[in-house]
Amino acid sequence: MTSSAPTDTFRRIALRRHPVGEPTPEDFVVLSEPRPTPGPGELLVRTLHVGISPAARIRMSSRESYAAPLELGETIYAPTVGVVAESRDPAVPAGTIVTSPGGWSELSVARSDAVDVFDPRLGPASSALGIYGTSGFTAWAGLRQFGSIKPGSTLVVSAAAGAVGSLVAQIGRLRGCRVVGIAGGQEKCRLVEEEYGATACVDHRSSSMATDLATACPAGIDLYFDNVGGKVRDAVWSALTPGGTVVVCGLISEYNQDSPEPGPPWFRLLSQRLTVKGFLVRDHHGLRAEFLAEMSAWVDAGLITYREEFHDGIESAPRAFIEMLRGHNRGKTIVRLADDPR
Amino acid sequence: MTSSAPTDTFRRIALRRHPVGEPTPEDFVVLSEPRPTPGPGELLVRTLHVGISPAARIRMSSRESYAAPLELGETIYAPTVGVVAESRDPAVPAGTIVTSPGGWSELSVARSDAVDVFDPRLGPASSALGIYGTSGFTAWAGLRQFGSIKPGSTLVVSAAAGAVGSLVAQIGRLRGCRVVGIAGGQEKCRLVEEEYGATACVDHRSSSMATDLATACPAGIDLYFDNVGGKVRDAVWSALTPGGTVVVCGLISEYNQDSPEPGPPWFRLLSQRLTVKGFLVRDHHGLRAEFLAEMSAWVDAGLITYREEFHDGIESAPRAFIEMLRGHNRGKTIVRLADDPR
Repeated sequence: MTSSAPTDTFRRIALRRHPVGEPTPEDFVVLSEPRPTPGPGELLVRTLHVGISPAARIRMSSRESYAAPLELGETIYAPTVGVVAESRDPAVPAGTIVTSPGGWSELSVARSDAVDVFDPRLGPASSALGIYGTSGFTAWAGLRQFGSIKPGSTLVVSAAAGAVGSLVAQIGRLRGCRVVGIAGGQEKCRLVEEEYGATACVDHRSSSMATDLATACPAGIDLYFDNVGGKVRDAVWSALTPGGTVVVCGLISEYNQDSPEPGPPWFRLLSQRLTVKGFLVRDHHGLRAEFLAEMSAWVDAGLITYREEFHDGIESAPRAFIEMLRGHNRGKTIVRLADDPR
Repeated sequence: MTSSAPTDTFRRIALRRHPVGEPTPEDFVVLSEPRPTPGPGELLVRTLHVGISPAARIRMSSRESYAAPLELGETIYAPTVGVVAESRDPAVPAGTIVTSPGGWSELSVARSDAVDVFDPRLGPASSALGIYGTSGFTAWAGLRQFGSIKPGSTLVVSAAAGAVGSLVAQIGRLRGCRVVGIAGGQEKCRLVEEEYGATACVDHRSSSMATDLATACPAGIDLYFDNVGGKVRDAVWSALTPGGTVVVCGLISEYNQDSPEPGPPWFRLLSQRLTVKGFLVRDHHGLRAEFLAEMSAWVDAGLITYREEFHDGIESAPRAFIEMLRGHNRGKTIVRLADDPR
């Protein structure tokens, strides 16, 4: 693709109805609207890439969560990377690459103090969403803030072939953990072992998951980085060591459910003195510079690898999202609207 | 009562069968046995007082927990305070007051390095089980290690009229918290408010418990010290503030159940970034001297008050235990076998 010239209209994708269970394409609508004009202190940002992540499912439900539910007609929430097309703030001139919560939209207006400038020397603009974006920062900050990792300890991560999980596995390994992944299917498990350096990866679709997990973790599980919740979490729960920690980063298996699932019994939490900690990366924005420095050094040294999976055109976003929730992605799912500007 | 002279036999109480649900007197048996003889490095301890606590219920079930289940015929586990009747270690001479896990028994043999010497200047021997014993240490260490209390924050404690809860309430108040108790019944609630200094106390037997809790905690709950689990915990769960903490110290409401109850949904744990931490006081033995110094200063200054409820004679232990599990006690339940030695 090449970047398209500015036009008088742009397209965005909104909720047509609140999905019940697994979202369908009919839950979304593509709207075409007149190009907006930024006011003082605002930027008009042309989206290059939209980051597709499971957490977007949460706000599509009508129930209250950590953010207000999306209203019908509202643009689907998503982090984006884009180029400033018009600026009403001289500090962020036209042509600057920025990340912002632009949503499933070809254009967005943002206050200049609500965007982060992306340094293009780090990598292509798409990397601002995955490895240097929310996914990478989540993996890095989750382990740094809550991991209290001792070298040689056993770290288990679920959704280990996904955008966050694949980085948790690699960062854990770099920090000296024995890393065991959990993923859906043999092919993903091979990826986690061969490309992301896990000692082992357990297929959660196998009927022998619990046994396989025990075999892969003969000394128990010291730290569990949970992206999925549900039955995978329950299997890990029984294998946590005394004093073990769970970092709750995501609950993908529950996002399509209308009412929340019960958690595991607290009896074991007490008897094993477990710590369970919910984690949202947005609380840790102050660590961003440190994150970018450490992560880019690892990437430049070839110590960390990552995958991006592109879908082209804003109209591909619902399908990309639905496929990702089904676990069909490998690495970061990105909707590409334009190539990087030269 | 007066202390009885040594005899050739002693009595102890053992499990006759594993209780199913609420224990009954028939689950226990009083055994009379020949007086044991301590070996080298051992002490024969004559029990003065037995501490009765809900946690003893856990090991009565046949299922595995943080300690092996009691076998039939084994003495019921309990902390005791006693006087050394015969010593085979000159460092702990006869006449010394010691605490040890002597169980529901008139006599016990202990290795001298497995007992703690009790300083009788602190208070009567019974205080070695409550305020200066496991109950006090649990309340103090749980708040110190996990509370990270900010003055003005709202602390909620369940079983607030009990041995641990009444001290959590008072220590929380001394540390600057706004303390709200939860207890069963109006009379206990009055005790918690008037004697233990809680700003309010919510009756968990009331059908309006959740509303009452919300009214008592208009700014939400920052820290919950959980002694009970179950429906009380679930009501608190919905009122925790973002970043709130739960210290899981006990699950009294579940101890009589054969299989563990599910915990609350993790969705809220994630969205509110909660921390949940299981806590056993035995992990914190290194803090004992600091605890005794701070607690005795508070007691001597009249800043902390406590209650002891005595039942006389070893044969009263099963009934005292059953009554305590039903919540009929106020403060620490103690089975008294003899008065303090003079």
